Amino acid sequence: MRRVSLTAKEKRREVLAKLEKFGYDLYDQLERGILPDIIMPSRSIDNIYYSPELRQYTLGDKKIRRSASNIRHLRPIAQLVWMAYFVHELTASQKTSTLRDVFYSAQAYDIPFKNQDESDDIITDLETILGCTREDFNVFPEERSAVFGDLTIEYTIPNYEGKRLNLTSHPDGVMIGPALTSAEFIETNADKVIAIEKGGLFTRFIEERVHERFKAILVFLGGQAPRSTRYFIRRLNQELGLPVYVFTDADPWGMHIAMVIISGSANAAHVKELTTPDAKWAGVWASDIVSYKLPSDKLEDIDVKRLHELLRDPRYKGEPWQREINTFMRIQKKCELEAFSRYGLTHIVDKYLPQRLKDLGE
Amino acid sequence: MRRVSLTAKEKRREVLAKLEKFGYDLYDQLERGILPDIIMPSRSIDNIYYSPELRQYTLGDKKIRRSASNIRHLRPIAQLVWMAYFVHELTASQKTSTLRDVFYSAQAYDIPFKNQDESDDIITDLETILGCTREDFNVFPEERSAVFGDLTIEYTIPNYEGKRLNLTSHPDGVMIGPALTSAEFIETNADKVIAIEKGGLFTRFIEERVHERFKAILVFLGGQAPRSTRYFIRRLNQELGLPVYVFTDADPWGMHIAMVIISGSANAAHVKELTTPDAKWAGVWASDIVSYKLPSDKLEDIDVKRLHELLRDPRYKGEPWQREINTFMRIQKKCELEAFSRYGLTHIVDKYLPQRLKDLGE
Repeated sequence: MRRVSLTAKEKRREVLAKLEKFGYDLYDQLERGILPDIIMPSRSIDNIYYSPELRQYTLGDKKIRRSASNIRHLRPIAQLVWMAYFVHELTASQKTSTLRDVFYSAQAYDIPFKNQDESDDIITDLETILGCTREDFNVFPEERSAVFGDLTIEYTIPNYEGKRLNLTSHPDGVMIGPALTSAEFIETNADKVIAIEKGGLFTRFIEERVHERFKAILVFLGGQAPRSTRYFIRRLNQELGLPVYVFTDADPWGMHIAMVIISGSANAAHVKELTTPDAKWAGVWASDIVSYKLPSDKLEDIDVKRLHELLRDPRYKGEPWQREINTFMRIQKKCELEAFSRYGLTHIVDKYLPQRLKDLGE
Repeated sequence: MRRVSLTAKEKRREVLAKLEKFGYDLYDQLERGILPDIIMPSRSIDNIYYSPELRQYTLGDKKIRRSASNIRHLRPIAQLVWMAYFVHELTASQKTSTLRDVFYSAQAYDIPFKNQDESDDIITDLETILGCTREDFNVFPEERSAVFGDLTIEYTIPNYEGKRLNLTSHPDGVMIGPALTSAEFIETNADKVIAIEKGGLFTRFIEERVHERFKAILVFLGGQAPRSTRYFIRRLNQELGLPVYVFTDADPWGMHIAMVIISGSANAAHVKELTTPDAKWAGVWASDIVSYKLPSDKLEDIDVKRLHELLRDPRYKGEPWQREINTFMRIQKKCELEAFSRYGLTHIVDKYLPQRLKDLGE
């Protein structure tokens, strides 16, 4: 395994050190008799721009300064300090939490958050200040997706540390949660990753042995992929050097599932660990509806509106995006992954998949 | 392991035999020069009633008759015959499908379905005629949930037949899909099942070793449980004799997640394999909001409307339902599982869970 990133243990140590440095800086200012300042990149819309080099949204140079000498800043500063304390506890004890859970936990400390939006916002502040994701400090999404394929991992979480599992062990797939996210990758014979929007197709791919026939690690997205799944896909790409192919329904929403894996979202412009810029949207394309004569439905108004939005989105410059958006507009049709079943259940695996991988230079 | 139901292999043989008998009956009529008839229980609303003995909705004595001599019946009969053929192929070849996939597959055979509702309805006819669930003939839900705990299973699907897995192998949980649904239960030290609505809490329970401390198999529901998860919970209850406790948010929707596991839905009145009548809704109750002083939100109009519907629902006669519905109405509040975090992350596991299991006679 190429190791291009920190091990889970090194990463945890680094995150704890960052959190502690954040605390020491505040103490330091207090000891020098200064009311503490916190300076961080602004996340306001006028400071978010798309970076063609990074191939994701990123923050500009604008900074904001929160000062304890400003009475209006006292509340968010107190909340931020508590948040840093709380996630330090989580990370040190290797317990995990969710955004919702953190909101309620604050009440155990008499820290007032008006609502969850407010606590979510403070967590995002902390991500921005520390330059890491909330998953790094053990705040995980509620949603879960899954993976299946020839990859042996080694756990780093308590009670499982050092244990290994090959991800073909369970043919329905294993969930991508905190344990898998923080596991070390030990060994694989796979040479690509295939991510699939839907559960039925994920199972079909396993039944038809796509993992062996195409040497693929299969990821089930479950619609828009949870952040930890995007992080996991990035790791498969960066640490193992595996190309990533994303299969979705042929509609603007499926296209965007692929795009968020590739280039992330504007909401996450302050983090860099959730994108896989080299991942490819492999289908189902609008042009496939035509060339494979797939059963389709008429685009609805809301689909067309969405396509117009995507046309103006900087992430959608270039191909295959422009070509496919224009094809959607021209044919006014959409279709689903399952539509290939009109040619028999295994057509998608036997014919479409190998042809598409070839088209994409596999 | 007590074996009170058929093995997966016996079950598959039985389903194939039922499908074949359905076909032979048609041939038999044709050979006798009769235009074939199909007689099945009516699923119209006036033939669905709640059975206090079965503790689920069931169908009454009314039958409907579809006759090939009636021109209006020819289309649904042809669709039904194709459906029986198609799922026989699926079951015999041990391939799985979804409702959506079956709809598209029909096009490979030039069988016209106007839309998916029509093909779903024909699948339900076939369930009704054969007295089995569509999962029995390998049509699975699109959604996936997960399980974790000390249960060793043995797969019966191709390529995995005879392989065993202990369901503590992956601490994020393993998915409940076709492979797990059809697996044999080999060995367990668990003495109960705890089903949990939400992913974050499912992970918390694993981290806090609820599976060991309370000898529990943990099931993640992911909101309203997919049918195959309900079937799996029923198997844990019936084959292993394990009591089942369901934990949800304290609101009418959470209450109904538990109820559908316990007593099923009116839509599935024609099948008996999706309910666990002895399962218990273990919380979070409306009365817990009061006794534990949990952070709560005001009931919204839609919640109150739903509570009024549930009051009239025959499944909600008796306790704890009536008491809790009335408490919701009186306090006009709801709350989430995560609300216990106001007392610290582990309070729900350290205090609430053991107390509730004791209350319920554990």
